[in-house]
Amino acid sequence: MDKMWSGRFSAGASNLLDQFNASIMYDRKLYREDIEGSLAHAAMLAKQGILTHEELKQIKEGLSQVQKEIESGEFEWKISDEDLHMGIEKRLTQLIGDTGKKLHTARSRNDQVAVDFRRYVLRKNLEIAEAIKLLMEAILEVANKHTETLIPGMTHLQHAQPINFGFHLGAYLSMFKRDVERFEISFARNNISPLGCAALAGTPHNVDREYTAELLGFDSVSVNCLDTVSDRDFALEILFNISTMMMHISRLSEELVMWSSYEFGFIELSDEYSTGSSIMPQKKNPDVPELLRGKTGRVYGALVGLLTVMKGLPLAYNKDTQEDKEGVFDAVETAEISLEILKEAIKTMQVKPQNMEKACAIGHLSATDLADYLVEKCGIPFREAHFITGRAVAKGEELGVDLSKMEFKDLKEIDDRIQEDVMEYLGLRHSMNARTSQGGTSSERTKEQLEYFKDYLNTDKES
Amino acid sequence: MDKMWSGRFSAGASNLLDQFNASIMYDRKLYREDIEGSLAHAAMLAKQGILTHEELKQIKEGLSQVQKEIESGEFEWKISDEDLHMGIEKRLTQLIGDTGKKLHTARSRNDQVAVDFRRYVLRKNLEIAEAIKLLMEAILEVANKHTETLIPGMTHLQHAQPINFGFHLGAYLSMFKRDVERFEISFARNNISPLGCAALAGTPHNVDREYTAELLGFDSVSVNCLDTVSDRDFALEILFNISTMMMHISRLSEELVMWSSYEFGFIELSDEYSTGSSIMPQKKNPDVPELLRGKTGRVYGALVGLLTVMKGLPLAYNKDTQEDKEGVFDAVETAEISLEILKEAIKTMQVKPQNMEKACAIGHLSATDLADYLVEKCGIPFREAHFITGRAVAKGEELGVDLSKMEFKDLKEIDDRIQEDVMEYLGLRHSMNARTSQGGTSSERTKEQLEYFKDYLNTDKES
Amino acid sequence: MDKMWSGRFSAGASNLLDQFNASIMYDRKLYREDIEGSLAHAAMLAKQGILTHEELKQIKEGLSQVQKEIESGEFEWKISDEDLHMGIEKRLTQLIGDTGKKLHTARSRNDQVAVDFRRYVLRKNLEIAEAIKLLMEAILEVANKHTETLIPGMTHLQHAQPINFGFHLGAYLSMFKRDVERFEISFARNNISPLGCAALAGTPHNVDREYTAELLGFDSVSVNCLDTVSDRDFALEILFNISTMMMHISRLSEELVMWSSYEFGFIELSDEYSTGSSIMPQKKNPDVPELLRGKTGRVYGALVGLLTVMKGLPLAYNKDTQEDKEGVFDAVETAEISLEILKEAIKTMQVKPQNMEKACAIGHLSATDLADYLVEKCGIPFREAHFITGRAVAKGEELGVDLSKMEFKDLKEIDDRIQEDVMEYLGLRHSMNARTSQGGTSSERTKEQLEYFKDYLNTDKES
Amino acid sequence: MDKMWSGRFSAGASNLLDQFNASIMYDRKLYREDIEGSLAHAAMLAKQGILTHEELKQIKEGLSQVQKEIESGEFEWKISDEDLHMGIEKRLTQLIGDTGKKLHTARSRNDQVAVDFRRYVLRKNLEIAEAIKLLMEAILEVANKHTETLIPGMTHLQHAQPINFGFHLGAYLSMFKRDVERFEISFARNNISPLGCAALAGTPHNVDREYTAELLGFDSVSVNCLDTVSDRDFALEILFNISTMMMHISRLSEELVMWSSYEFGFIELSDEYSTGSSIMPQKKNPDVPELLRGKTGRVYGALVGLLTVMKGLPLAYNKDTQEDKEGVFDAVETAEISLEILKEAIKTMQVKPQNMEKACAIGHLSATDLADYLVEKCGIPFREAHFITGRAVAKGEELGVDLSKMEFKDLKEIDDRIQEDVMEYLGLRHSMNARTSQGGTSSERTKEQLEYFKDYLNTDKES
Repeated sequence: MDKMWSGRFSAGASNLLDQFNASIMYDRKLYREDIEGSLAHAAMLAKQGILTHEELKQIKEGLSQVQKEIESGEFEWKISDEDLHMGIEKRLTQLIGDTGKKLHTARSRNDQVAVDFRRYVLRKNLEIAEAIKLLMEAILEVANKHTETLIPGMTHLQHAQPINFGFHLGAYLSMFKRDVERFEISFARNNISPLGCAALAGTPHNVDREYTAELLGFDSVSVNCLDTVSDRDFALEILFNISTMMMHISRLSEELVMWSSYEFGFIELSDEYSTGSSIMPQKKNPDVPELLRGKTGRVYGALVGLLTVMKGLPLAYNKDTQEDKEGVFDAVETAEISLEILKEAIKTMQVKPQNMEKACAIGHLSATDLADYLVEKCGIPFREAHFITGRAVAKGEELGVDLSKMEFKDLKEIDDRIQEDVMEYLGLRHSMNARTSQGGTSSERTKEQLEYFKDYLNTDKES
Repeated sequence: MDKMWSGRFSAGASNLLDQFNASIMYDRKLYREDIEGSLAHAAMLAKQGILTHEELKQIKEGLSQVQKEIESGEFEWKISDEDLHMGIEKRLTQLIGDTGKKLHTARSRNDQVAVDFRRYVLRKNLEIAEAIKLLMEAILEVANKHTETLIPGMTHLQHAQPINFGFHLGAYLSMFKRDVERFEISFARNNISPLGCAALAGTPHNVDREYTAELLGFDSVSVNCLDTVSDRDFALEILFNISTMMMHISRLSEELVMWSSYEFGFIELSDEYSTGSSIMPQKKNPDVPELLRGKTGRVYGALVGLLTVMKGLPLAYNKDTQEDKEGVFDAVETAEISLEILKEAIKTMQVKPQNMEKACAIGHLSATDLADYLVEKCGIPFREAHFITGRAVAKGEELGVDLSKMEFKDLKEIDDRIQEDVMEYLGLRHSMNARTSQGGTSSERTKEQLEYFKDYLNTDKES
Repeated sequence: MDKMWSGRFSAGASNLLDQFNASIMYDRKLYREDIEGSLAHAAMLAKQGILTHEELKQIKEGLSQVQKEIESGEFEWKISDEDLHMGIEKRLTQLIGDTGKKLHTARSRNDQVAVDFRRYVLRKNLEIAEAIKLLMEAILEVANKHTETLIPGMTHLQHAQPINFGFHLGAYLSMFKRDVERFEISFARNNISPLGCAALAGTPHNVDREYTAELLGFDSVSVNCLDTVSDRDFALEILFNISTMMMHISRLSEELVMWSSYEFGFIELSDEYSTGSSIMPQKKNPDVPELLRGKTGRVYGALVGLLTVMKGLPLAYNKDTQEDKEGVFDAVETAEISLEILKEAIKTMQVKPQNMEKACAIGHLSATDLADYLVEKCGIPFREAHFITGRAVAKGEELGVDLSKMEFKDLKEIDDRIQEDVMEYLGLRHSMNARTSQGGTSSERTKEQLEYFKDYLNTDKES
Repeated sequence: MDKMWSGRFSAGASNLLDQFNASIMYDRKLYREDIEGSLAHAAMLAKQGILTHEELKQIKEGLSQVQKEIESGEFEWKISDEDLHMGIEKRLTQLIGDTGKKLHTARSRNDQVAVDFRRYVLRKNLEIAEAIKLLMEAILEVANKHTETLIPGMTHLQHAQPINFGFHLGAYLSMFKRDVERFEISFARNNISPLGCAALAGTPHNVDREYTAELLGFDSVSVNCLDTVSDRDFALEILFNISTMMMHISRLSEELVMWSSYEFGFIELSDEYSTGSSIMPQKKNPDVPELLRGKTGRVYGALVGLLTVMKGLPLAYNKDTQEDKEGVFDAVETAEISLEILKEAIKTMQVKPQNMEKACAIGHLSATDLADYLVEKCGIPFREAHFITGRAVAKGEELGVDLSKMEFKDLKEIDDRIQEDVMEYLGLRHSMNARTSQGGTSSERTKEQLEYFKDYLNTDKES
């Protein structure tokens, strides 16, 4: 007779079942959302005359006491209470007696869990968006210092064209801005109250769903209760958004790891955010970006997990759905610590402009500039210019000289139409600054882009 | 010397490489986007004085000829041309000579593929959204006919409360509406022009990116070129949106399959959308919803595939990214045919209201109503009412009678506070119609909901 | 100066890093494997004269003390100790002084973690295989009771042919037997010692890898150290094997859920392994199979997670790999409790033969028998027989009579070649027992199959 | 009346259904397996007296004709024939008349598809295993040339210890050997005949399943028909095995890409297996390994796809299962071309030993050797030795000298116990060759390992 729903059962649930079935050991993370939801529900019941004001007062005091017990660590979470909702209600009833039992009027655990979990996810959407912005600020600060720092722009991990490091970091600002947008939009689209849907079909009690929605900060009330109690789209969305964000982080991490290698030597992570080897004392390992890269896996896994859970479920609530929470909790916490530690690693890393610039002198980075010169100054069609440049590069390799350092006579030999003014075109900084098209890498354009992100981050703060 | 980039290579690429590397056999699907992109680029080059008007005219005519050849099936797609872009440019040059080679001035295959693929995905976002709305209309039409048809509302696949079938279908309207929103928002957020980013860093040519963006129907121009050429977020978004939509479809399909079984007998799919067995002549198999349910797998797979591809890629373009297209094409086509066939299956299925209603008389569906009665009329706290109801149900099972058919005296025996007016509460239709809270199942509320979806679908048409 | 590798670092690692980086809070689960590995390593060092016997004795006593502290709960796990290996070694050194520092001679955390984690996975392969066999025994017991119980054999969730329930359960015995084999083979293939690989390249110390392998129960020694420290195939294998097993469990669970519905009514789960509803007192929810079905998701997720982690990692050890453990631990624990609870649910469920048999009389289950009759007795080609049967079924539906109950004259009307002996063919039990081909559903064949599984389970016990 | 099962259907299937439902456009790849299966089935029917010998002869000739038509391209694959089995049987009946209709006696499409698809997968297991061995031979050949070539052994992408390049490649030989084993074992475990299971329950016809199994090269006959027609474990296994193999390939590819960069410069891919840039003439892109790395995604996706399809499917055959084939076909073809092209890329790549060795002089690679020296020669406990080495490294960095080049006096300053014989320990080649433990990197040990793989590949050939 322990379980609240055990009226018609002849044998008690087994302890193994409790262990398997109970969610209380992880869904208790939602205790704040649950108590707030209960307070709103009780306030509404009182407003509608379903509870007296005295009863409401008792419930408020009782729930306040429960919250205190939870936050002080006194609260006894028992696996036999099955879930957070039962645990809290049972304690409430111990504290205030029969009035506690009235709280569940006109609601069900199905809408309770829908409210609690949705509000957690909504809140986390905003918190993660804010955390991304803090990371963006850290990146922006570094980027602003390096709008003149040459670094080889790569495709296929091959040196392609000289760009500046600020511009390179600007690519990540673009990615993270998209991430922020996704989290914010997911919040806006899903800020809809499930409360009042009861088990699946609404309730005959005279409830006021608009009122509880308002009390809980929802923008509106859900349209169809059957859908509402089994909707987990919002949870899938946060998992997808975190997955995409972690994918971006994995890309930056891959670069941080490579840049930290002896071969690249473009950056050095601070001692504070590096670790050593138990057997090789000289090692300084970029554990942080490596682990960030690895954590992409668990987040992808959580997304696949919930997609799998939801596949083929008939309406409405099925117990399978209980499997939604742990994956989301884990992904959210992974996102939060990842953003925090990446921000610190970026802030404290040492950039090595000399190594970056040195690397630009390898790989004929101004080859495209030669091609452009041939097109613009000599009126040669692009495809032919490309071909001539190919031969100039081959010559350079033969001579062991980078194109940016080749002598005029050697170039002239390749194609007679080349004039002395070509030399200016082949300089690496000139090459970088020549790319002045919108979104391009020239220092001016880069500064414009960084200004754009600065404005974005500031506007947001003001609003 | 076959390949356009082969200037510096001493040995030709092997045929095996061609086979492995070439994307032309699937990316040719983007020929329309590619030609439109080239036309916009050429128009801009002319406007900026980089091409003469005569050259532009030649290019236009040439591309128009190429398009005709493709659409008539004359165009020869050769694996040795590597990709769509090369194939088209090569043919253009055959047709109009050296001017064709000028078209590639100030652009790169990296931004070309970014333009083509993005525009394909953007277009498909809108087309899929429209196809979902057509499905919604088909569902709505059935739902409107069944706002009075009782069906057991289920949780845990157990009869829970009587609802109406229109309300049940309304849950799917809610899901599909969210899907529409996701596709539309993804379109709006990603409608940004990559054109003019060139290889990775912009171009020194005096291009006008705003102009090409406008010509191609983009809302704006991308901010950072390095990001732009390697951004595949838009592709991940459409894969996620399709996955979530297919998950919803898999849920409806699961129900259609179950409802088609002898055990349920709630619907019968039309002969037109059923198949038979090669060995069991009496079988009528719900292949369509089964296959729809199965197709969820390939779409999830495509999402996982691209997430895997993008993980840990350094900037900017890497060949790995070429793996973005086939998965997206397959998922998009799966989405399109799935929506179409599901719509037809819904339109032509036969609903069996009698079987649905008969099923409602099993499982004590008005149990919650008894509990509600005890709370409202007898002032018994909810938890206690729940317990009493449990005993009434046990009694019913003992007697072999559904709660909705129990005699008053038997109820009275359970708890003396129960009065004769309880009998009205226990009627199934009464029970369904009692749930009048917002979003609830009562016929009135259901009609209100269906009106809401009708308005949604209409408004959208007008705008 | 806290960390063991901090010799060359000028700034201490930040606390945030500790939190992010440390694995001690979950890898401590491997304490037993770690201590056993250290004992074997120490014994080998002593045998090879690298440690004195006195030192070995000290280390043994020290480790024994550490183990006691861990098992009694006294051991203080500190996040600043980073991982299990460091935590234990540090405590050992506190207990026995400088000798403790000698234990790490000729090994590295890289091979230590490889040993510990591999041995955990190996052990779990065998334990899970044993747990599956216990589940198989429970299923076998039920199956043995129901080799004469008719149940509709289904394809496409449509009644197809009458089979017996023992035969139906035999399908799951087949699946689970394959699972057992996969776990056992994975054990056998991966039972190879990593110990002695050190960081990545072996060690100059005169170690005896065969000796430690033998002490730890490994069958052999790994071939290439660089591979060994980064090999996680064994972990992927257990995740795949668990995923496939959970897929099988999800299929059985789906059936248990459906069979528990009012519509099917084929079984009733015991009260002990069911739960109730907080709002609908009459509900008896099959939470156990629902949750089992849902848990498939988290296990698939763990597999995807590790596949993602490993993708594209350069040799040898990278920190990303640390992400291997939590997913495996979670999947293993999920497998263990799932097998246990499913076994109990099966053991305690009530089978309802009457309902199963009643269902067989719906859906013309003997249609194939009619077709077979037409082929065998009337010499009609199969495809034509199939067609005639189709018409008989159509007639049955018209008359509202199942084929097994149709009158001879009605059949004769369909095709004149049909004789009176057809009536025997159409009986459901006859139909089931007619399928006497190897692996078929006749009671005799079913018993043979169940005997096969019984032998399999017994043989295994003896060996 | 077009479809073979259309006897009881009043309306024909729609064309949209055909498009959606038909598998013939891809399952025709199994035509050879299908015809062989039919021949075996017919032979058995004749042996059992169910077909006459004349009929068997007709069927054989008919099927031989069908096969010719398919292989010459004459065969008309029609979407309205739904699947391969129907298409072939229909053509057979056109060719030989009513006897063709007798072929389907005692079987069903369910066991037909099970036979065809299983035999395809079994065959591919062996073919892929052979292809891996060819790749291993190519790697072995390169490895054998470089057992003395120093290369920095890395962990965390940081130089760790000097190893030789042959040893490094040996790690991949180990991985690929495990892959071979997995494919071979999967073949052996699944080489079981489904033929004779019919729709789901066996057949009343007097079939001889052992006989058809033998004719088709199966080792045994499946135990339970219900399981057999819905078992797709063998397909999941090949997808997992390909996924793990592609993961290994992605790791090697990642290294090939990095090694091809200007920063590493360890190898150069041949022109034959590289591509160029449309805009940057100097680029030589490692497209092959990049694309190989990317193709990991589609294969993971196929695995996730089928796991999703199978989740929660009730017994026995469901149409969802039709979704098993395309993913497997794609994964198998990806595996085959990937192995082929990687083998060629390895064979034709240029290794640059000088660059590899030069890199070893950076990063204090003999640090572990100093630590080992301190332990062995000076009797200092390992942890302390580690700490001292850390200080030596710090000194080296201060002086701008690699540890392998440091002067004795500078070392002595760090710790007085260091003697002159330390100098020998610090040489890089000495360091590499010092790691003589089993599986270690010393040239001798490496050669031993490569010999082991050579034997493995040869033994296998002989058997």
